[in-house]
Amino acid sequence: MGLFSTPIKTLDDLFIHTLRDMYYAEHQMTKALPDMIGKATNPQLKAGLQSHLGETENQIRRLEQVFRMQGKEPGGVTCEAIDGIIAEAKQVMSDVGDRDVLDAAMITSAQAVEHYEISRYGSLIALARQLGRDDCARVLEQTLQEEKAADRKLTEVAESQVNRRAVA
Amino acid sequence: MGLFSTPIKTLDDLFIHTLRDMYYAEHQMTKALPDMIGKATNPQLKAGLQSHLGETENQIRRLEQVFRMQGKEPGGVTCEAIDGIIAEAKQVMSDVGDRDVLDAAMITSAQAVEHYEISRYGSLIALARQLGRDDCARVLEQTLQEEKAADRKLTEVAESQVNRRAVA
Repeated sequence: MGLFSTPIKTLDDLFIHTLRDMYYAEHQMTKALPDMIGKATNPQLKAGLQSHLGETENQIRRLEQVFRMQGKEPGGVTCEAIDGIIAEAKQVMSDVGDRDVLDAAMITSAQAVEHYEISRYGSLIALARQLGRDDCARVLEQTLQEEKAADRKLTEVAESQVNRRAVA
Repeated sequence: MGLFSTPIKTLDDLFIHTLRDMYYAEHQMTKALPDMIGKATNPQLKAGLQSHLGETENQIRRLEQVFRMQGKEPGGVTCEAIDGIIAEAKQVMSDVGDRDVLDAAMITSAQAVEHYEISRYGSLIALARQLGRDDCARVLEQTLQEEKAADRKLTEVAESQVNRRAVA
């Protein structure tokens, strides 16, 4: 069993475990995003990542709200998935020389993060509904919609600008 | 720079790097899926994972086809993201006692994998199109559609059966 993790006996336990996983993941993203913002060249990409950093901080507040709705103290549990995604993003960023290609690489990394989060919030919402906690599902649904919008925005920036410049 | 990785100077390099990343990731999934199939209780989940194992083997063949279309030897590069996602899946699986809750936990893990793959194939297709390689994009599009269908199928099994049983 992982450090700080507790046995998962019920669907409630799985829900809380997944909440803790995302609480850790979102905190890691608030540490990783500033570096990506600093390295981004395309102004739309830079602004998009900056705005997503603000959203991420709000998403942490929402997770805290759901913890409280469940009568639990907010807290994280090490999420090896997000650690792996971030480690890979950093490695690819260090392998790229050209500024435009770096922007394109950062978009692919940021979209891997968004999709990881989309899957986790999707699971949290399904679990909350099954547990009869539509109130928790509604709070998490706001975040899911933000993650989907962030992913679409990244696709748009990639297709309209970054990849076009990088291939030039 | 990572072991076995090469400098990424152009969008072509980024495309090949991401192909190698997925080649490694799909191979890791062919190793991880049999354990999940063995542990699944719900017959629909078991059958779905089994069928996805077959799809994954086809997806490896498609990646090899795209490598050849690019005049490259097929090969992988360590993908820390998929390693992290799989490590986390294994940890959660070892933390769960109840069989129905284990099925629910495996679905959340499998969906994290699907979404990672959806993001990577989405990026590969965008890059291929930008590079004027619609032929490569078309091959990868088949895999993307399979990954999306696998994700929808997992949602359906979770909502209609697994989570319902696990909460009982």
